[in-house]
Amino acid sequence: MAQPVDHEELTVPDGRSGCPINMTMELLGDRWSLVVLRDVMFGGRTRFRELLGNSLEGIASNVLASRLAKLTDAGLLSRHPVPGHRQKVDYFLTEAAIELVPLIVQLGAWGARWLPTTPELTIRAQLLADGGPDIAERFMDELRRIHIDRQPPPDDGVLAELDAAYHHTMAQS
Amino acid sequence: MAQPVDHEELTVPDGRSGCPINMTMELLGDRWSLVVLRDVMFGGRTRFRELLGNSLEGIASNVLASRLAKLTDAGLLSRHPVPGHRQKVDYFLTEAAIELVPLIVQLGAWGARWLPTTPELTIRAQLLADGGPDIAERFMDELRRIHIDRQPPPDDGVLAELDAAYHHTMAQS
Repeated sequence: MAQPVDHEELTVPDGRSGCPINMTMELLGDRWSLVVLRDVMFGGRTRFRELLGNSLEGIASNVLASRLAKLTDAGLLSRHPVPGHRQKVDYFLTEAAIELVPLIVQLGAWGARWLPTTPELTIRAQLLADGGPDIAERFMDELRRIHIDRQPPPDDGVLAELDAAYHHTMAQS
Repeated sequence: MAQPVDHEELTVPDGRSGCPINMTMELLGDRWSLVVLRDVMFGGRTRFRELLGNSLEGIASNVLASRLAKLTDAGLLSRHPVPGHRQKVDYFLTEAAIELVPLIVQLGAWGARWLPTTPELTIRAQLLADGGPDIAERFMDELRRIHIDRQPPPDDGVLAELDAAYHHTMAQS
């Protein structure tokens, strides 16, 4: 499991700048990593086939495999074999990934304001952005329950609220 | 100049998902775009040579040129020939780029918590993250004055505060 950095112990790799904006972009600055984390976070998908088959963007199978491996190595996903299925693995968010919620909310809010988007895919980002730190904190607590404690999602939680808003907007469009 | 999207008019390009998180990553999900914007935003560098020569990460000249062109095309940088210098161009942030401040603050805050970074390069991100929405709003107003109204940076503004904190941490390390 990833741990917050102990800055006394860890050193920046040779030849790389230790600017935190740069280091985050070195890790997550690619076309797919945050989109895969979005699907685990909002879509509740924890298996390769679900992530591949339900991808809105049609992620390629080899790209998905390489991103899941990278995110696992980086400590953002934890890998759990499904008991009784030798080939099946569940991917769960770690605390480091759950703490990306405020960043992902900002990605969504900026995209909704400045780029062409579709209303039914924007409503969740909008609700999270408009709800401010309170809803983000509630959402992160719910994700900890689901991904770290492995409890089922609550019926009256933030994910349920976001899904209801999504289906409401879909029905209108 | 970029304008906020009028969702009645713009449509999502064929074959692409209109999820705002996805659309933002399509545009900015690469290793360098946000790092270049960081240097214009925090470093006050507006010219190619400054951005190239002062790059902490040693960005390659062709990569910098391609990112400046991409960011200009996307409406995140505006290009202004320097009067009397046929070859010189200033790049200024647009409103769309200035509104990336909350996203860039989150990139810095997450990186400072989860990745190896150096204290003197982390202090600015930390101050912005700890200052919450107030300091982000003040910072965006200051950037509008500098990049849109083309006024010199104020001596007692947020950039000056961040630079003072940076030099203080440098002196201690």
